[in-house]
Amino acid sequence: MTTHDIPRLLAFAGTLADAARGAILPFFRANHTISHKGGDRFDPVTDADEAAERAMRALIEREFPDHSILGEEYGGALTQSGYQWILDPIDGTRAFISGLPTWGVLIGLYHDGAPLIGVMDQPFLEERYRGWMSGADGATRGIKRALNTRACATLQGATLSTTDPYLFHGDEAAAFARARAGAKLTRYGYDCYAYCMVAAGHIDAVIESGLKPFDIAALIPILTGAGGGVCAWDGGDASAGGRVLAYGDTRLRDAMLETLKS
Amino acid sequence: MTTHDIPRLLAFAGTLADAARGAILPFFRANHTISHKGGDRFDPVTDADEAAERAMRALIEREFPDHSILGEEYGGALTQSGYQWILDPIDGTRAFISGLPTWGVLIGLYHDGAPLIGVMDQPFLEERYRGWMSGADGATRGIKRALNTRACATLQGATLSTTDPYLFHGDEAAAFARARAGAKLTRYGYDCYAYCMVAAGHIDAVIESGLKPFDIAALIPILTGAGGGVCAWDGGDASAGGRVLAYGDTRLRDAMLETLKS
Repeated sequence: MTTHDIPRLLAFAGTLADAARGAILPFFRANHTISHKGGDRFDPVTDADEAAERAMRALIEREFPDHSILGEEYGGALTQSGYQWILDPIDGTRAFISGLPTWGVLIGLYHDGAPLIGVMDQPFLEERYRGWMSGADGATRGIKRALNTRACATLQGATLSTTDPYLFHGDEAAAFARARAGAKLTRYGYDCYAYCMVAAGHIDAVIESGLKPFDIAALIPILTGAGGGVCAWDGGDASAGGRVLAYGDTRLRDAMLETLKS
Repeated sequence: MTTHDIPRLLAFAGTLADAARGAILPFFRANHTISHKGGDRFDPVTDADEAAERAMRALIEREFPDHSILGEEYGGALTQSGYQWILDPIDGTRAFISGLPTWGVLIGLYHDGAPLIGVMDQPFLEERYRGWMSGADGATRGIKRALNTRACATLQGATLSTTDPYLFHGDEAAAFARARAGAKLTRYGYDCYAYCMVAAGHIDAVIESGLKPFDIAALIPILTGAGGGVCAWDGGDASAGGRVLAYGDTRLRDAMLETLKS
């Protein structure tokens, strides 16, 4: 079995997050260029996004030349062997261009295709959340503490979140409508930030679909390390993205998997 | 015509916001009690809400004993004569209890029933937005600048926001669906914070319904002072709440009023 130098890897992920902060913050709430990716959906890519990914890639290539990289802006493919950094320099670009501070820098590291560590950094709020599968912590402007999900056994008692309810289509929309109708409260609009609120024990679950690997890679170790987890809507592995359920309590997970499939 | 000492009133509103910050922050992301108001909707009232309104009321009663007060927690009715402070100690309680930092303290002052000044304060982010009908400014951790809305002539070019799309019912839901379908981008979940992003030129319009006077009183002077405005969906006065459209550009307002009524 491979052993991993988790403290070193976490410290290095922090260095990556620092570099991304420096690259991105000058663009937040400033005038910036917005280009459009192909496809029907409005999906802006900012100069900040590209600058941050370039900065992180350069650091990784220097420190760990044998690690592979998959990033939102400059591509790559998931691999099942060795270390792979999985980067989303700005998760929540739509929030970003709207001046809203709930986007984040996502930095994940997989080993042989399995999640190992993850960092979600919110530069403007100076909040950083880290996870390493067996533990997680968070810092908000210097206040650092272990992250622990809260107990929530039932959908009726749960606060849910999803970024945009209109991103669900067909069967997915029906499944989301059932979950929303059964929940105590549902919030919208928070991208990666909502997952960290599950890890911190303020929200109980996040439901999303259509995720890419870089949307979820960093969050799995944080959720898992905080005592919850992330799975697909069929209960399977979510490390490649797709339809994702992040939860704080396995009893709620089981209840929601029933709700999502019925 | 009555003249108003706007600098003094703004400074005093800042004192109120400081008091609310002190009352609320210890409760954010901490364990706290949640009670339920009457009615079907989940509408939590926290200890923080009540403590902040009590603190603000005490300051107003000492400084301006002849001013009336309308507050979310401790009541009052809109008056058409004299000065009236209109307070929502935590606008966005659902965000608050979910650990999300997009709630705000709303402090409005009307004179003879008309908006005069307003403050939106976000204690956790240390952001404060102020307006006085002919001008507006904002401060984010010490960075202070005048607020100006951005130009946006058409719905197709507009970024919209609403807190929760499921709060629209019947005709309202159909009207919102038309606006969303025609817009460039729609964001969800930001309560009062989204209005301030219109004032700051990052979002173009906010559409909401079912608002109370204390949900909108503080925001009208900020939006108006930044070069935009707030009106009802029929183009009329929005100072008592109801169905509200906040906009940055009057051309977009006109286009949206057509969309909302057709």
